[in-house]
Amino acid sequence: MIGMMPSHLDELITALRCLPGVGPKSAQRMAYHLLQRDRAGAQHLAQSLERAMASIKHCSKCNNFSEQEVCALCASPKRDAGLLCVVEMPADLLMMEQTQCYRGMYFVLMGRLSPLDGIGARELHFDRLVKRVQEHSCEVILATNFTVEGDATAHYLATLLQSQGVKVSRIARGLPVGGELEQVDSGTLAQAMLERREVLA
Amino acid sequence: MIGMMPSHLDELITALRCLPGVGPKSAQRMAYHLLQRDRAGAQHLAQSLERAMASIKHCSKCNNFSEQEVCALCASPKRDAGLLCVVEMPADLLMMEQTQCYRGMYFVLMGRLSPLDGIGARELHFDRLVKRVQEHSCEVILATNFTVEGDATAHYLATLLQSQGVKVSRIARGLPVGGELEQVDSGTLAQAMLERREVLA
Ligand SMILES: [Zn+2]
Ligand SMILES: [Zn+2]
Repeated sequence: MIGMMPSHLDELITALRCLPGVGPKSAQRMAYHLLQRDRAGAQHLAQSLERAMASIKHCSKCNNFSEQEVCALCASPKRDAGLLCVVEMPADLLMMEQTQCYRGMYFVLMGRLSPLDGIGARELHFDRLVKRVQEHSCEVILATNFTVEGDATAHYLATLLQSQGVKVSRIARGLPVGGELEQVDSGTLAQAMLERREVLA
Repeated sequence: MIGMMPSHLDELITALRCLPGVGPKSAQRMAYHLLQRDRAGAQHLAQSLERAMASIKHCSKCNNFSEQEVCALCASPKRDAGLLCVVEMPADLLMMEQTQCYRGMYFVLMGRLSPLDGIGARELHFDRLVKRVQEHSCEVILATNFTVEGDATAHYLATLLQSQGVKVSRIARGLPVGGELEQVDSGTLAQAMLERREVLA
């Protein structure tokens, strides 16, 4: 069997498995597809991967992906530094911005508490979040998803921040139970933002 | 919204969509995963893509993927040049080799007739297949899958080759109807190979 499969093809099939949800069969299918039908796409993907990995870091203020030390949103003088909205993922921040009803700052957790996956307070940089809130004495709006894990994350953060005297609110349950921010229309999300209520200790 | 999403992240998400079966949502999920949890994997994938696209061509004899002009199997003096086994994909060739019951040559179609997808005789290089059979006056064994498209491909090829006086056989229907070579065990496939029968005009 040696030499029957080009070694660089083997290598590509293995490398494709770093993508989430891609098993051995689909990695093989992807490699064949690229080699037979889309070599230009494969070249472009290779370059995009290199460029993205080299240039994209996390904003030192909001933790969102950014090519600068401080992202454009955090650097903007037009934003209200007295409000800090906590979201799980960059896509949630984009959804929130699309509602055009929020002019404060953000903190992007890049995940949610998920003990079974080994994602805890440390992985989500709660220490940086608390430090930032203390420094700017801002009000915190928790806009994590209304899933079990999103709710648990909000509850944990509310307890943590309130113990430090921070005013904390949670966006309103305008979203369906189990709903994710990314899948809801702007109107519903705007409403949920307006109807946010303070989290009582 | 301008500047909120790093442009190289946008570019990466778009580039990932060249992979078959990857829509906008999973492209985004993949990009986030690589940036947050597997930057080394992403770098390795980029290099593997570059190397594979630069080095992998098609063997000029069997049409399989190869890093040489003529692949190791086609260059081997141990193979019987009087037998040519036609398979759909490289994985089918590997399966056939695993049975260790076939010592002839191969022709890899890199697909099967599929008019709706625009894949016809030209795309599958039937002209090169016919030319090769004529030059080496070999017997042809059709080992395409026993699916509707694989059967149609075998039928088309049998008619084409028999009109040129070539002896053509089809591997035996030891496989379940609708079965694919890649999913069958070696024993069944070896049996099907032994019980191949000549295709009668
Ligand atoms: Zn920022
Ligand atoms: Zn070859």
